[in-house]
Amino acid sequence: MAEAKTFQFQFTEFWEAQTGLTFGIKGLLHQETSEFQKIQVLETDAFGRLLLLDGLVMLTDRDEFVYHEMITHPSLCLMEEPERVLVIGGGDGGTVREALRYASVREVDLVEIDGRVIDVCREFFPVVASALDDSRLTIHVADGAEFVRNAPADHYDLVTVDSTDPVGFAEALFGEDFYRECHRLLKPSGILAAQTESPFDRSFRESISDAHRMLGRIFPQVHMYLAHIPTYPTGTWSFTMGSKQWNPVTDFDAQRANRQLAPFLGYLQYYNTDIHAASFALPTFVKRLFVGV
Amino acid sequence: MAEAKTFQFQFTEFWEAQTGLTFGIKGLLHQETSEFQKIQVLETDAFGRLLLLDGLVMLTDRDEFVYHEMITHPSLCLMEEPERVLVIGGGDGGTVREALRYASVREVDLVEIDGRVIDVCREFFPVVASALDDSRLTIHVADGAEFVRNAPADHYDLVTVDSTDPVGFAEALFGEDFYRECHRLLKPSGILAAQTESPFDRSFRESISDAHRMLGRIFPQVHMYLAHIPTYPTGTWSFTMGSKQWNPVTDFDAQRANRQLAPFLGYLQYYNTDIHAASFALPTFVKRLFVGV
Repeated sequence: MAEAKTFQFQFTEFWEAQTGLTFGIKGLLHQETSEFQKIQVLETDAFGRLLLLDGLVMLTDRDEFVYHEMITHPSLCLMEEPERVLVIGGGDGGTVREALRYASVREVDLVEIDGRVIDVCREFFPVVASALDDSRLTIHVADGAEFVRNAPADHYDLVTVDSTDPVGFAEALFGEDFYRECHRLLKPSGILAAQTESPFDRSFRESISDAHRMLGRIFPQVHMYLAHIPTYPTGTWSFTMGSKQWNPVTDFDAQRANRQLAPFLGYLQYYNTDIHAASFALPTFVKRLFVGV
Repeated sequence: MAEAKTFQFQFTEFWEAQTGLTFGIKGLLHQETSEFQKIQVLETDAFGRLLLLDGLVMLTDRDEFVYHEMITHPSLCLMEEPERVLVIGGGDGGTVREALRYASVREVDLVEIDGRVIDVCREFFPVVASALDDSRLTIHVADGAEFVRNAPADHYDLVTVDSTDPVGFAEALFGEDFYRECHRLLKPSGILAAQTESPFDRSFRESISDAHRMLGRIFPQVHMYLAHIPTYPTGTWSFTMGSKQWNPVTDFDAQRANRQLAPFLGYLQYYNTDIHAASFALPTFVKRLFVGV
């Protein structure tokens, strides 16, 4: 075992030297323990600044665009004139930034339980946090599960669950009661979009099937889609869309969506109307997770 | 700097403990230095056995299916009755295994420069190497660049360049002369498919654009496609298809392809006819690599 440990160390060193997987940590810019979690900001060679919450990678300067574009645009581009968006979690501001690109969006509620995340991101991630002062945005430093219980019905076009992983204080965001409340808040054409871990990670496969089954009891349309995110475990990330009305592939009008995207197309680095349908095409092993669901 | 180094070590430990990115090396099963390279086989927790060539990840038991299915099926499923396939590199046998799934394929040439890779994979990766004894296969332990100079014209339906990265002895496989020879070997409906690194890795972006430009001088149709491969750097891998005749998206007949795949569909874990077109849809930042190319 000592030999294996020595080898592992050498291998990690080599691997990090050879590949783009390494972050190349240059220094720790900020570290604090908030009421809810440990918040750390690191400077890295490969990915710019890196935000960790309780040691988990939340975002980096260089690839945050994938996650934030993909949790918003596939839903918003299905709608003619989306007006109201609710973001649960997402205190970094990236999801809000993408939603506010649409001129038709006139009200965004951001519900982040940890106000310190917002402050730290304003200071260290100015590009991600760039829309946090938009006049159409209301920031609620509050518990997301409680917020959705008290919010008005039939109000939002899109609810995004932009939360940390399903452990600890974020656990309540992954239950059936929570998703039923989200359904209630949505207009008849509304969509829920949630991040749902990596299907390559065996430890999450059961919870992915469970989430799919649960959402299927609440929404008539449930669809998973994938994106390439280098700094998230396995490099592949899934999102799940629960939709009251639209089928995200067959009801997608690429020409209309392109007109909608035109004013800010130059800012997008990942999402486009080809990627839209493509992201809903699932590898066979992922499809098999849903057999019988 | 000492502080940063300590932090990096702690972070790596934590990261590896928390995520699916870690291999969890349990031991070194085999190690040798062949005439060409260092060959190592490791046992890992997360990905089963792992093959390293000169320290670079070539394949693991758990995710080799993605690479091997995606370097063969998108091309072979464009053809009615593919008969002859040439695999340059690929001594592990995975690409050969996928090509030989087609009953119409009656001749596969595998040209691997390092016979020790073949032997080691036969011993340690029996599933990957499972088709290496197929009677339709001829193994040539030879230099790929030399092989293509001497092979007959107008002979193959598919040539795959399943090589290591463009350094050292594999460098000759990435030049224009080599690709012109591959073009010469192909039938008028033939296709070349090559692995072309990760577009997320900034150090490869220039060579991806270069390869695209170069192939565009040789083939009337050049298309990049992507796949999710967790154990390759950044988790995203690109392939480039040079085609003499077929446009891989608009000429793809999914119904016909499904009939072709039917006899072995149960063995495939990644590729399916939805994934086919989807894999050619490129994120905006990747499309921008080809602007002006």
